[in-house]
Amino acid sequence: MVGIKDVAIKAGVSVTTVSRVMNNRGYIGEETRKKVEDAITTLDYSPNQIARSLLSNQSHLIGLIVPEMKNPFFSEIMQWVEYYASLKNYKIIICNSVNDKIKEHGYLQMLKEHRADGVIMCSHTLDTEVYKKLSIPSVSFDRIISSKIPYVASDNYHGGELATRHLIDQGCKTLLHISGPLNFEMLSNRRFDAFQMTCTRHNIKWEVVEGAKVDATFDDNYRFIEEEVSEHLSEYDGVFCSNDLMAYALSIYASKNKINIPEDLKVIGYDYHSFTRMLQSPKLTSIKQPIELLAKQLVRSLVKQIENKEPLAERTIFDVELIQGDTT
Amino acid sequence: MVGIKDVAIKAGVSVTTVSRVMNNRGYIGEETRKKVEDAITTLDYSPNQIARSLLSNQSHLIGLIVPEMKNPFFSEIMQWVEYYASLKNYKIIICNSVNDKIKEHGYLQMLKEHRADGVIMCSHTLDTEVYKKLSIPSVSFDRIISSKIPYVASDNYHGGELATRHLIDQGCKTLLHISGPLNFEMLSNRRFDAFQMTCTRHNIKWEVVEGAKVDATFDDNYRFIEEEVSEHLSEYDGVFCSNDLMAYALSIYASKNKINIPEDLKVIGYDYHSFTRMLQSPKLTSIKQPIELLAKQLVRSLVKQIENKEPLAERTIFDVELIQGDTT
Repeated sequence: MVGIKDVAIKAGVSVTTVSRVMNNRGYIGEETRKKVEDAITTLDYSPNQIARSLLSNQSHLIGLIVPEMKNPFFSEIMQWVEYYASLKNYKIIICNSVNDKIKEHGYLQMLKEHRADGVIMCSHTLDTEVYKKLSIPSVSFDRIISSKIPYVASDNYHGGELATRHLIDQGCKTLLHISGPLNFEMLSNRRFDAFQMTCTRHNIKWEVVEGAKVDATFDDNYRFIEEEVSEHLSEYDGVFCSNDLMAYALSIYASKNKINIPEDLKVIGYDYHSFTRMLQSPKLTSIKQPIELLAKQLVRSLVKQIENKEPLAERTIFDVELIQGDTT
Repeated sequence: MVGIKDVAIKAGVSVTTVSRVMNNRGYIGEETRKKVEDAITTLDYSPNQIARSLLSNQSHLIGLIVPEMKNPFFSEIMQWVEYYASLKNYKIIICNSVNDKIKEHGYLQMLKEHRADGVIMCSHTLDTEVYKKLSIPSVSFDRIISSKIPYVASDNYHGGELATRHLIDQGCKTLLHISGPLNFEMLSNRRFDAFQMTCTRHNIKWEVVEGAKVDATFDDNYRFIEEEVSEHLSEYDGVFCSNDLMAYALSIYASKNKINIPEDLKVIGYDYHSFTRMLQSPKLTSIKQPIELLAKQLVRSLVKQIENKEPLAERTIFDVELIQGDTT
């Protein structure tokens, strides 16, 4: 590996001079600068960022912990986080917790050991106490951890309200909600709260079944519909699914079982991620989360903390939008 | 930040003793070990991996450069690379080149500066000379760079042959191939070679149009079909698309334009990634790349180089498989 000394020897100057040229510090004559730059190019020298990190106490690495990379929502979050982080010269280490406590804990430990400058937490399997004790800047997606840790979310309550009101406006009288797992204190559970409130306010009979999982394949979702939903499906004329993959499985189940969508059954999903945008038949009615904005704000909020060296308890909630498709 | 000295003070032992406990080196009495472990737990101490990297010259970071994270094929490669790397205690830094030479060059530079232990190159916008001069272990996906850099690919020639023969076996007489960009020396271009050879051998009229892009949205692909393919589409009874997203756009175009698939037109795609597996109508006939195996081998081949400290010019080609769907 070529070191700064080799550059100095090649250029016939001192190590201090090379360092000055590289950091643009102090007066350097044009000829000397040229000699150093030529030596750097000839030797293909790159400064040791690890040594720099140790001195500056900044690694420019950000950990991104997601619950499941397979899920198109999180793979899109990841893509935008990488994009906005790279604009600010931060690199992303990806950590796929697969919703496993032990894995997530291991990742947090590893990020501390690598002196990551910060963590973006989209996976939430651990008690809030663990995150509070983290001791590196962090930002949380879709979960409130403490008043000191900023979070970013979209307006889940409004999303649930929009979806439910849309079904009611389309004439539905009895509604089913297929929620995500309700055991974690996730802000996405506000979709269920809004569903329940909106139904009650409009005197609509409703039921909820807990089901949509972040790591589900099509077959998992389809089996869930068959086993947990199909028996009572005829009692409902509208279903609000807490994610698009479940809404898609339900649409396919309906079409295989001669249930006409949207005439007999209206279906609305949630997310409007790359899969949904690609899908043409049926085009799902869905609640669109502003994935790019969410990712941009996660990076922004974290980098602000890292660079100000103080926690900023920002809370950012983005609005959502109804996308009309063919399923309602 | 808690340091090793703080642990030593808390435990009432020397720094050397703490280091011995942590590295499991030399004789340590049970009581001393317990004291050190308790101090580590109480202080929530984590060893500075950056300092360790500097000493050991190993960062345990691997760079993964992909041409486009949005593409389901690469987002699945990424997911499996992360999985297999984490089993071997390596962390993945993601680099999305978006097929841009300048970005890709910047990432390579950054990975060198961060002393990444190695690079997995799935993006190939630069001349082979640049990769040859890399000076860190690397492995290439779908491109042969030099006899010293290992590569991993699936059998693109066999895939092209399988797809073409399948269309011919189903009775097609005139075939169109929508290829990927042919300008880079990518192994995926062997699909086109096989298409051409197989058609010639079976006396089948054929045509090729260059088109499928790694970053294309549904609308991009659909527009491509309308503008570049539709006018002559009636001349063909079978189309081999070099990726599933293009095959999907073609299927949708056909169904909107009253072209019956598979009766009037047979369509076969390539990849069989998460999007295709999720998609139910139509179920695409496709050539399945073994994405998990490809990712596993990319990690395996790179880690072998890193740990043996010598380049191993392994070439690994995995076989592909025809998945029968409803479009042929």
